[in-house]
Amino acid sequence: MPNAFETPQDAEDAFYDAFEEGNIEAMMTAWAARDDIICIQPMRRQAIGRQGVREAWEEVFSSGARLAVEVHHQHWSESGDCAIHIVLEQLTLNGDASNRPPPILATNLYRNYGDGWLLVLHHASPPPPPPGMVQGMPPQAGIQVPVMPQR
Amino acid sequence: MPNAFETPQDAEDAFYDAFEEGNIEAMMTAWAARDDIICIQPMRRQAIGRQGVREAWEEVFSSGARLAVEVHHQHWSESGDCAIHIVLEQLTLNGDASNRPPPILATNLYRNYGDGWLLVLHHASPPPPPPGMVQGMPPQAGIQVPVMPQR
Repeated sequence: MPNAFETPQDAEDAFYDAFEEGNIEAMMTAWAARDDIICIQPMRRQAIGRQGVREAWEEVFSSGARLAVEVHHQHWSESGDCAIHIVLEQLTLNGDASNRPPPILATNLYRNYGDGWLLVLHHASPPPPPPGMVQGMPPQAGIQVPVMPQR
Repeated sequence: MPNAFETPQDAEDAFYDAFEEGNIEAMMTAWAARDDIICIQPMRRQAIGRQGVREAWEEVFSSGARLAVEVHHQHWSESGDCAIHIVLEQLTLNGDASNRPPPILATNLYRNYGDGWLLVLHHASPPPPPPGMVQGMPPQAGIQVPVMPQR
């Protein structure tokens, strides 16, 4: 069972340290020991529960790529036993600064169930496109929904 | 000030009803009266606080498009004063069933601050691509991050 953390930020540090290390056991210590934890990686369906979340990260880590993650906080709020961090994640792959995908926008939700803070939700999604980029939604819709990249 | 709802689902119904109606005042009744509410529309940056969230929805509604939203629940959890709903939102534009963008995957977080439930976070993002689609990330990364649609 994971030991809870003193602050939401401590849980977040454990999460991103494990992400960078590609360490699945360390990753799982950041998450609450609950069947209702949720992880949504960019352009993926939700992974639910400890086993689902573990498998999602095992798949990420299975490539063996060396990932560095710069975390840029966009917004924090904490109220009662619930803390929300909105972050931009800037990945660097295999130490190659020229190979940096667009930053990922993520919501991290932490709860304190009485003995400290743990991650319960990570929803990561593609970032806004660069200014001036046209997105793939009928213009009358008013909502911008990207089309899938055509490959 | 919004009146809180008896259940998270009541707040969610108010949110999607207002979405379909394009009614900004009704939309804002679904949200908590707090400076730390967060709305992330697909491929957009976060909107924070009641004014920011209002402006984000005013922009969506300004097109005048008639939107129908089918909401498909993927996962629910509720613990203490915090409820999380993961949903797929299937939009139909102007009643044209042939003009349906890919469904949007959204996290809705509701809180009960003592007098009922209100929406505090909406994070909506592009859906997974259809099976077999290759995504735009260096394959060694192991993480799928979409490239921006090239237009």
